[in-house]
Amino acid sequence: MTQQFAIGVDLGGTTVKTALIDAHGSIVAQSKLPTRAQENPAAVLEQIVHSINDVMLKAPGKKIAGIGVAAAGIIQNPGGIVKSPPNFKGWDVVPLGTELEKKFNVRVEVDNDANVAAVAEAKFGAGTAYPNFLFIIWGTGVGGGVIMNGKIYQGPYGGAGEVGHISIDYKGLPCNCGGTGCIEAYIGQRYLSKRTIERITSTAGSKIVEYAGGDPTNIEPIHISRAAEAGDPLAKEVLTEAGTLLGVALAGVMNTLDFRVTIIGGGVSAVGDFVYDAIQASTVKNVQKPLREGIRIIRAKLGNDAGVLGAAGMVL
Amino acid sequence: MTQQFAIGVDLGGTTVKTALIDAHGSIVAQSKLPTRAQENPAAVLEQIVHSINDVMLKAPGKKIAGIGVAAAGIIQNPGGIVKSPPNFKGWDVVPLGTELEKKFNVRVEVDNDANVAAVAEAKFGAGTAYPNFLFIIWGTGVGGGVIMNGKIYQGPYGGAGEVGHISIDYKGLPCNCGGTGCIEAYIGQRYLSKRTIERITSTAGSKIVEYAGGDPTNIEPIHISRAAEAGDPLAKEVLTEAGTLLGVALAGVMNTLDFRVTIIGGGVSAVGDFVYDAIQASTVKNVQKPLREGIRIIRAKLGNDAGVLGAAGMVL
Repeated sequence: MTQQFAIGVDLGGTTVKTALIDAHGSIVAQSKLPTRAQENPAAVLEQIVHSINDVMLKAPGKKIAGIGVAAAGIIQNPGGIVKSPPNFKGWDVVPLGTELEKKFNVRVEVDNDANVAAVAEAKFGAGTAYPNFLFIIWGTGVGGGVIMNGKIYQGPYGGAGEVGHISIDYKGLPCNCGGTGCIEAYIGQRYLSKRTIERITSTAGSKIVEYAGGDPTNIEPIHISRAAEAGDPLAKEVLTEAGTLLGVALAGVMNTLDFRVTIIGGGVSAVGDFVYDAIQASTVKNVQKPLREGIRIIRAKLGNDAGVLGAAGMVL
Repeated sequence: MTQQFAIGVDLGGTTVKTALIDAHGSIVAQSKLPTRAQENPAAVLEQIVHSINDVMLKAPGKKIAGIGVAAAGIIQNPGGIVKSPPNFKGWDVVPLGTELEKKFNVRVEVDNDANVAAVAEAKFGAGTAYPNFLFIIWGTGVGGGVIMNGKIYQGPYGGAGEVGHISIDYKGLPCNCGGTGCIEAYIGQRYLSKRTIERITSTAGSKIVEYAGGDPTNIEPIHISRAAEAGDPLAKEVLTEAGTLLGVALAGVMNTLDFRVTIIGGGVSAVGDFVYDAIQASTVKNVQKPLREGIRIIRAKLGNDAGVLGAAGMVL
């Protein structure tokens, strides 16, 4: 059998990253172009097509199994329809998948960032040994993707895995979504920073404030994480608490799906191992007994390339 | 095509109920025998075989697609292995599915009560129009089953749908399972009765106590439900609260699976429509925006026959 190749497109608000990868997830050729999201959908499509042609020219003669696209917004399948991606001007509803199929005459799959990153971890990252796992993007918000029998589970309407709005306290913090006690309202990047700022009684001696350049209003999870590694007690407390709360939400998902494994990616996932330990302990405590032994909370392996790798992985 | 028939066995601790049903879910013949669970697995198996022969004799000449069994305990598939069903003497691990396949030389499927009842509703009950729904058994505990693309989703280890131990409050009530704030610890039959008893300040004039025969310690959800229908304010309050809490847990499942529909069966599901309205309102409030319009909370249609119908439904 000749080796298979696929093209992955990571469509961001600023940059279109495109890569041609082989079946092992190695990048053979890549391209980066501005998205032109501030113009109109036609301009964006032009950039995508241009970037795909780019990588095909850089690695000619490769048999392409298909094209995968990671996009923001709500994705409706079949058809790879992308609805209202944030910061894309004039983009209401665009059948991106169908458009690209017409242009390139190959199979095209489109999915949202979280699902695509989940596929990347399943095929090439921390999830290769696990046919069933929950993938979490822990960043500004908390998103997710469900890998079931080795494939992404999109759900009947393409919106599965949205675990950030699972409530962990029915009388808890209000969330932007209108719900109450959503896990995102406790551990999403902004909330985490805000809650930390509120708890700093004095900036003097706070390593968190030090890592944030002396200004508490600049505090990001990365500063809290560094301060924790350097022994700052408040930083450790805040992150351990966040991990414990995340475990409560994860336990509910594990119970429902009969899963054991969660892989955590996204900006905040760079936190120290002690946070993973806290998530693990809390998940174990909160799942049903028969699940406890198998629970595994694992750090994602793929960083910035997860988008192109997972996008290509959808058609490999 | 000749019409298909199947045999459904509902293996309870006291009675083996067996029915031969047609493809529309009509019972053609049935049998009831004592389970002999207090003897040993061989005696129980004998009763099952006997009851199957019974219904085949009552409706001779029917082409049987297979045999389905609803059992308590932990079911492991393939093989239809039943582990430690409560109140079955000497029954550790029995490969019930394989045993019945050998005896009758037809396809045999075994699953737990909740999953089987979910299949019953999917094939013949309130779920026929919905390829994807969560089924809840609201009784002593809170159990569930996940119907995905028209089929039961058993999960990688056969334990999917155990939504009763989803936490709705990470610092809430302790649950028997060792977790904190499990929905079962708020609305399971015993908890619901207990919480109601605690809130009755005076037995005089309480319709709940009246329906419980004058003794508050006898209070069951059915008495609370009847009192609520008769206008008792505490009864209405308790059940509305239970529905609201259940909605919080359901919302998390709907978000994760991208589902819209929940069907509710089990003893407590006989409560008045106002409880369903409370569950619906709370689920809508707590799911993500794109899901809100489609949320449906529906009462199960099948009562005591759900076991035999669902069991047979697994092989139809």
